[in-house]
Amino acid sequence: MLANLTPDIDLATRLLDTLRQRTADGPGVTRAAYGPGERLAHAIVREAAEALALECRTDPAGNLLMTLPGADRAAPLVVLGSHLDSVAQGGNFDGAAGVLAGLAALAGMRRVAFRPARDVTVLAIRSEESGSWFPVSYPGSRAALGRLPAEALAVRRMDSGRTLAEHMAEEGFEPEAVRAGRCLLPPARIAAYVELHIEQGPVLDAERIPVGIVSGIPGSRRHRDARVLGEYNHSGATPRRFRHDAAIALAELAYRLDERWAELETTGHELVCTFCVLATTADAGFTKIPGEARFQLDVRSVTPASVDALFDTLHCLLPEIEARRGVRFELGAETGSAPSPMHQAVRAGLTQAAQELGVAHRAMASGGGHDAAAFAQAGVPAGMLFVRNQNGSHNPHEAMRMEDFAAGAAVLTRWAAEASV
Amino acid sequence: MLANLTPDIDLATRLLDTLRQRTADGPGVTRAAYGPGERLAHAIVREAAEALALECRTDPAGNLLMTLPGADRAAPLVVLGSHLDSVAQGGNFDGAAGVLAGLAALAGMRRVAFRPARDVTVLAIRSEESGSWFPVSYPGSRAALGRLPAEALAVRRMDSGRTLAEHMAEEGFEPEAVRAGRCLLPPARIAAYVELHIEQGPVLDAERIPVGIVSGIPGSRRHRDARVLGEYNHSGATPRRFRHDAAIALAELAYRLDERWAELETTGHELVCTFCVLATTADAGFTKIPGEARFQLDVRSVTPASVDALFDTLHCLLPEIEARRGVRFELGAETGSAPSPMHQAVRAGLTQAAQELGVAHRAMASGGGHDAAAFAQAGVPAGMLFVRNQNGSHNPHEAMRMEDFAAGAAVLTRWAAEASV
Repeated sequence: MLANLTPDIDLATRLLDTLRQRTADGPGVTRAAYGPGERLAHAIVREAAEALALECRTDPAGNLLMTLPGADRAAPLVVLGSHLDSVAQGGNFDGAAGVLAGLAALAGMRRVAFRPARDVTVLAIRSEESGSWFPVSYPGSRAALGRLPAEALAVRRMDSGRTLAEHMAEEGFEPEAVRAGRCLLPPARIAAYVELHIEQGPVLDAERIPVGIVSGIPGSRRHRDARVLGEYNHSGATPRRFRHDAAIALAELAYRLDERWAELETTGHELVCTFCVLATTADAGFTKIPGEARFQLDVRSVTPASVDALFDTLHCLLPEIEARRGVRFELGAETGSAPSPMHQAVRAGLTQAAQELGVAHRAMASGGGHDAAAFAQAGVPAGMLFVRNQNGSHNPHEAMRMEDFAAGAAVLTRWAAEASV
Repeated sequence: MLANLTPDIDLATRLLDTLRQRTADGPGVTRAAYGPGERLAHAIVREAAEALALECRTDPAGNLLMTLPGADRAAPLVVLGSHLDSVAQGGNFDGAAGVLAGLAALAGMRRVAFRPARDVTVLAIRSEESGSWFPVSYPGSRAALGRLPAEALAVRRMDSGRTLAEHMAEEGFEPEAVRAGRCLLPPARIAAYVELHIEQGPVLDAERIPVGIVSGIPGSRRHRDARVLGEYNHSGATPRRFRHDAAIALAELAYRLDERWAELETTGHELVCTFCVLATTADAGFTKIPGEARFQLDVRSVTPASVDALFDTLHCLLPEIEARRGVRFELGAETGSAPSPMHQAVRAGLTQAAQELGVAHRAMASGGGHDAAAFAQAGVPAGMLFVRNQNGSHNPHEAMRMEDFAAGAAVLTRWAAEASV
C-alpha cells in the first residue's frame, strides 16, 4: 500500500496557481491575517477539501480543520499544518505550500483508498505573519490549541489599528470562545504535528539539497522600537568635540555588535543578529547633524546562551558609547521567545521517510519562527520539513521548484501514513 | 564723530520682533526663498529703510539695496549684507540679524548726521538657505553681483518643484535680466563687503566670547544622494555568510570614516564630517535584512587637503566593504565648493574696530557657507562677523542675546564708518 501512496501534486499545483491569481497584489500576493486575502485562501482550500470529501470544521478562531477519518476516531490524531496568511506583497509559497502539501497527502490517500488507523487532519492556520499584521507570536495556532492568552486578543493589527478580537469577530469567528480556551485541538488529542514550509534562507539551495529536516526553531531577543537621542546641530559649524551625533553613535553600535557576532561564530556559537531598521528620522536633512535615529534589533538562536552572549556585549557597549558621544539610547521594551526544539521521534520518522523514498535531505535549524513552535511549546510532538527555495521569503520573488515541493510532500505523505498506523 | 556713532539697537530689536511675529510658523519662523515669508521680510525692512530716508532699490533678482549716500557717489561702495530667507521652521536670527545690524548702523549714522565719504549700502539678499529651498549655492548674492550662471535659474525649489526662474518671475522680478548678468552691484563697484551673522555652532558660547572675526568659509565635498545596495533576506533564516546587509555595510563605512576623522584631527587637520542622513529605506521592516540604505555625506574644511585626505579614505573603504559584505555603493554625484578665505585687510579692520570698542573677540573659521563666500569668489574684499548664539541655527530654538548682537553691530558700525572714509 505505502509503495503506491504518493501525494497529488497536480492538485497542489492547481490550488497554488488559483491562490496566486486570486490574492495577487502587484508582483506578489497579499493575504492579510483576518483580512480579505486570508479569507479567500481559506475558501479556496475548503472547497478543494470538500471535493475530496474530507470532514471540514472551523474552530472559534477561524482555523480550518480538514480531516481524513481514521479507523479509530477516538485515537489522538496526526496534524499536518501551516498558515494561509502572507506578508503584504509577499510570495505565494510561504505558508500555503504546507497546507497544500497536507491536502496533496490526503488526496493521495483517497486516491489509493488508504485508510489511516487514526484521523489525519490538515490544519489551515490563521495569522502567522506577526511581522506584518498582529505583532504577537502564533495567535492562530495557539488559539487552535486553546492556549491563546487573553491579552493577545487585544493586540492591534499594524495596518488597521483594530484588535485581534475585533478582526476575528468581523470575519464571523468567536473571540470570546477563544478567550475561554474553547478549541477543536486540545494538545492531548494530538499524536504529532508536522509542518512543511519553504526554507526562508538560502542554505538548501546553496548546498543543492531539496529537503531539510528541522532540528529546532530559534528563540529570540528583540527590540522593535529602539532609538538613540543626540542633538541636532549645524553640520558645518559644530566641531567634533561639541557633537551629539545620533547617527554615528548608532553606526558604532551596529558595527561593533556585528564584529562581536563574527567573533562569537568563530568560537562555535550559532546565531543571527540583524538591525532590521537603522535610520535617521524624517527630521534629518542636509547640513544637519542627526539628533535622533531609530533601530530595530533582532537576535536569534536555537541556543539561548548564544543570544545572551551578544546581548551582554550590547549592554556593555551602550553606556560606553553614550558617555563618549554624549547621546542616550532608549531600547524600549525587550520582546522575545524561547527556542523550540523539534521532537526527537518526529525528526527520526521524517528522516526515515526521506531515506525510504531516496530524497536527499539534511538536518538544519530553522531560521524563522513557525507555528510548529506553538505546538512544541504546548507539549505536542512536533516536526518540520523545509523545502528548498530561491530568493528567500516575504517578497514577491520567493520561488520554489515544484519537483522540490513534490519531494517534500512525498516525505510528508509517507511520514503521515506511517505515523497514523 | 566716531565716538558718538553707535548702532540703533532699538530699531533692530523692534524689527526683529516684527519679523518673528509676522513670519511665525509654529514655534519658529518660515521665510521661504522667493516665497511669502521672504517677501514679507523684504517689505518690513524696506519700510524701515524708507523711514530712514535711505535710497531703496531692488535689483533684477529681488535683492534689496538700502543706501546711505556718501560724499562721492562715484566711489566704490561699502556693502553690509546678509539674507532674509530662513529654513522651514527655523530661527529668527539666521540671516535677518545681519541685515538689521546693517540698518542699525545706517540709522546710527543718520542719528549723528555722519556722512560717509562713499555710499554705504545695506544689502538684503534673497535665497541663501540652499539646504531648504533651491539646492544651489548663493543664487541671491551671485545674481546681485551679475554672476549667477544660467543653469542655476533652472534649479527647482525642493518643496514646489518649480524653477528659480519661475519663482523669481512669480515674485515680480526679472530672471531674463539675471540670466543676462544685469545687476546693481558689479564687483568692481564694491570697496568691501561685510556680513554679520549668528555663529551657527557652539564655540563662542562655550568660550564666553561675544564676537568672532571670521578667517574663512570652508569648502566642501558632498554626496547628497548616495546609497548602498544589498539584498533583502529573512533575518532569521539567512546565516552570516549568505548576507548582503546594506545597513551594516553603511554602519561600517560611517563608523570607520568617523574614526579616520578623529585620527586626522590628532594630526592637526581641521575639518568636519557628517552623515546628515544614514537610513534604511521604507522597504525595511522587522524580520528583514535591509537590502538598501541611503546616506548624505558632508565634509568641510577651510583647507582642501584635509577634505581630500578624508575622501581618500572613503574611496579606499568602499571597495573593501563591498567585497567583504557583498554590497554595492552608489555615491551619486559629488558636489562641493572651494573654500573662501576672508580678505586680510577687512579682517584687520574688523579686529581693529573690536579692539577700539573693547569688544572681546576671537578669530575663527566659519563652519557653514555664507553669502560672503560669493563676494570673496567674485574678487570683492570680504569679511564676516559672528555673534555668539545659543542652540545652534536652523531650528526654532536658535537664540541670541541682544547685548551680544549690540556688540557685533557696534563693531560693524565702527568698521563701516572707518571703511567709508
